[in-house]
Amino acid sequence: MDKKAEELKLFGKVLRDLREEAGKTQETLALDSGLDRTYISKMERGVASATLSALLNISEALGLTLSQIFLRFENSKQILGRS
Amino acid sequence: MDKKAEELKLFGKVLRDLREEAGKTQETLALDSGLDRTYISKMERGVASATLSALLNISEALGLTLSQIFLRFENSKQILGRS
Repeated sequence: MDKKAEELKLFGKVLRDLREEAGKTQETLALDSGLDRTYISKMERGVASATLSALLNISEALGLTLSQIFLRFENSKQILGRS
Repeated sequence: MDKKAEELKLFGKVLRDLREEAGKTQETLALDSGLDRTYISKMERGVASATLSALLNISEALGLTLSQIFLRFENSKQILGRS
């Protein structure tokens, strides 16, 4: 897997963790963010590269800022030695 | 202008500021990030919603993390009273 694909996959894993920590299902996050559930599923599997617009919707629905979400992502990369 | 369009426009302004602070033109950032110059121009004008994949390329080319870039964006929003 190339580096970019790995990064998208890791970001998806972080998104899934944050959604679960917020006590939301893909369905409730879809409702709260105004995004399609299948799009959220694709982001979480790292097969879709989220747009900034979608990321803004998700961050608002999760009650997190994008800097908080990306800090979590960057910490996960460091833990995996991919920083 | 709706809130989302305003946010994309503000994010574009932040990207432009960061690019200029890095001493890069749209052309050199395009070369360093592997993105098309017209795509960078659209992001900076807020008319394109960057993908996560493109944002990762840009952050690497600017030598910044995405959390740093979004922190700058969030600070700009606060200054403008749009937080």
